[in-house]
Amino acid sequence: MTSTMSEILDHPAFRKAQDLLRADHDRMVGEIITLTEIPAPPFAEERRAAAYLDMMRDAGLEDVQLDGIGNVTGLMPGSGNGGIIVVAAHLDTVFPEGTDVTVRREGTRLMAPGVGDDTRALAVNLSLIRSIRAAGLRTRSDILFVGDVGEEGKGDLRGIRHLLTEGAYRERVEGFFTVDGLESDALTSEAVGSYRYRVTFSGPGGHSYMAFGTVNPMHALAAVVTGLSQLDVPAEPKTTYAAATLGGGTSINAIPNEVWLEVDLRSVSQAELDRIDAAFHQMISTAVEAENRRGNAENGKITAHAERIGNRPAGRNADGSPFVASAAEAVAAFGFTPRFDASSTDANIPISLGIPAVRIGSGGTGGRAHSLDEWIDVEPELSLRGIYAILAAILAAAGMED
Amino acid sequence: MTSTMSEILDHPAFRKAQDLLRADHDRMVGEIITLTEIPAPPFAEERRAAAYLDMMRDAGLEDVQLDGIGNVTGLMPGSGNGGIIVVAAHLDTVFPEGTDVTVRREGTRLMAPGVGDDTRALAVNLSLIRSIRAAGLRTRSDILFVGDVGEEGKGDLRGIRHLLTEGAYRERVEGFFTVDGLESDALTSEAVGSYRYRVTFSGPGGHSYMAFGTVNPMHALAAVVTGLSQLDVPAEPKTTYAAATLGGGTSINAIPNEVWLEVDLRSVSQAELDRIDAAFHQMISTAVEAENRRGNAENGKITAHAERIGNRPAGRNADGSPFVASAAEAVAAFGFTPRFDASSTDANIPISLGIPAVRIGSGGTGGRAHSLDEWIDVEPELSLRGIYAILAAILAAAGMED
Repeated sequence: MTSTMSEILDHPAFRKAQDLLRADHDRMVGEIITLTEIPAPPFAEERRAAAYLDMMRDAGLEDVQLDGIGNVTGLMPGSGNGGIIVVAAHLDTVFPEGTDVTVRREGTRLMAPGVGDDTRALAVNLSLIRSIRAAGLRTRSDILFVGDVGEEGKGDLRGIRHLLTEGAYRERVEGFFTVDGLESDALTSEAVGSYRYRVTFSGPGGHSYMAFGTVNPMHALAAVVTGLSQLDVPAEPKTTYAAATLGGGTSINAIPNEVWLEVDLRSVSQAELDRIDAAFHQMISTAVEAENRRGNAENGKITAHAERIGNRPAGRNADGSPFVASAAEAVAAFGFTPRFDASSTDANIPISLGIPAVRIGSGGTGGRAHSLDEWIDVEPELSLRGIYAILAAILAAAGMED
Repeated sequence: MTSTMSEILDHPAFRKAQDLLRADHDRMVGEIITLTEIPAPPFAEERRAAAYLDMMRDAGLEDVQLDGIGNVTGLMPGSGNGGIIVVAAHLDTVFPEGTDVTVRREGTRLMAPGVGDDTRALAVNLSLIRSIRAAGLRTRSDILFVGDVGEEGKGDLRGIRHLLTEGAYRERVEGFFTVDGLESDALTSEAVGSYRYRVTFSGPGGHSYMAFGTVNPMHALAAVVTGLSQLDVPAEPKTTYAAATLGGGTSINAIPNEVWLEVDLRSVSQAELDRIDAAFHQMISTAVEAENRRGNAENGKITAHAERIGNRPAGRNADGSPFVASAAEAVAAFGFTPRFDASSTDANIPISLGIPAVRIGSGGTGGRAHSLDEWIDVEPELSLRGIYAILAAILAAAGMED
């Protein structure tokens, strides 16, 4: 087996794969455009998934299928014992149904919502599949390519969560790449975890003047917001809270029956996240009790219901993880200076499960992700160097056969 | 001049007016239905005003006109020096455009949104005008009948405020009745004043994780709500506050740019109302300053803008006011046990200006005002006793000529 990065890079089959990737680049760009123009709003990735399934099959993967949650998966069998390296890119965009996703092209620049996040990666992975097969590259581990659903926002990582906790392949996964973002120098090895809540505070309500003194759910909400604002959080591991949105009330002349608050809690440390989560729940209980003591509850007490609307586990790869190190080595081999960041991506799930995992950029440059002005530049030299780095990282993780 | 209540009640013209009111009762009920079925949503009273203007003219008033704000006014001249007693009922209902205002009738019960509040009073006043004229009753003061706009909610008493502070008759008004509500035993002689605010808290916003530490306008909002909940207010004179409605925020993963809060402050004492109003403004300043000290304001500071969206002055009639006493005497004369309450009605405006003023019920019974199930009962005996009481109160105030 070819075990060092230099052995991989010097291997004739790797060089052949590079040539094939270069020759495939225009087709890859065409597939970015094709896929970008198939809308994939949150919770409505089906059309793009169906197209991607056909493209994976055409690229030559085996067992191409839609799994129980809507991910598209396809296998590239290895020669080994059936251990799997996942290479994923997410199908969903942040853009709602009806967004104009027509791609405009000016030279090497492509402009459209979702073109870079994460559609370029979907196309890059197809090009990698074709080139690996055509170059005759063989790996020990199986490689499972995935186009997954639900990475963005309220999707709450449901695609990869399903894949790794309920999917048919879950017990065989030994390493995980999500190809997401663009810049090849940035690798995500730490998972920013988050809990998100919608807390509904209810009470009996009443006329603002006649029923004055009645318990007011807004008082409890305010105490929780103030409690959050005074919460001690460490700068390292970075831990944050945000009182984000709120609403409710009946009319200007009524004590409200119901008000609600949405809160986002995050940390790169699951222990810190769980600590502030417990503190947050304690704040809610304390605030509700205090308002029921303060006010008149003869027509009903204040109650609060905290619905968890988001749950992304935190974590980090093991110190000195060879999986992470070889991804960095692959990136460095193609002229990038690797730097690690902490972020909230599909890699959160494997990291939290103890599976080595890295988010790696799909290459090239771009900007304005999550905005209608999103763009990427597919200038081939930089674009291809990034793709070569991904290929090297995959081969190092999956074990390249001689 | 007939100066005592017993002289008024025993006067043949008064008895004749009673007979005429009784004979007119069916017509009056018909006019309740006609007027109820002409929608008069907040800030859209024009159609009902136009119809009422014609009805006032038909009833025989002079100088019937629409004033600058949309009130309908019509004069019944007296024999004296031009002093005016106002007899008002409000045109507006709380119900929005498109509400089904068809009246259903079962026996003496009429059911429709707005039928009792305050449409019955509009019709009662027409019947009083006809009967006073037909009975040949003469008063010293002029009587100005008014169908006014903007009594409910955000209407903010704009009709009567205009009449008494800008209208052509304003300097001649010596006493004021608003015929509003039903029960004849309840008289309002104290005005519950209110200030209402919509406070908008703004800040730079930012990503909940990346921009953590940035000043959050919701923290300032919460501090204001908590400050209100801890505000000391006297039970007597009754003074109240309500944090009523709120909203804002961008998304679950953003520190909000803007949140807003609506607050209702009330008191029967203008001094107490002004005291808590000042305290409220102080709370806003303190909360904004505290959040700007607590958080990172390098991308912008928190600011707050308090828009006064309601202003109803507080006050009470002079102790031992003969105007109030004779209204109570009139009600008692027809078998009711007068009781005084404090409320927020069109009478707030004259009371705050030092003009003797009382809210008097239009008679009969009913319920569920401000709901779609609103109803009244026009059973003639009780209905007419209430109307006779209003007539006696008006004549006592306006000075009945022999």
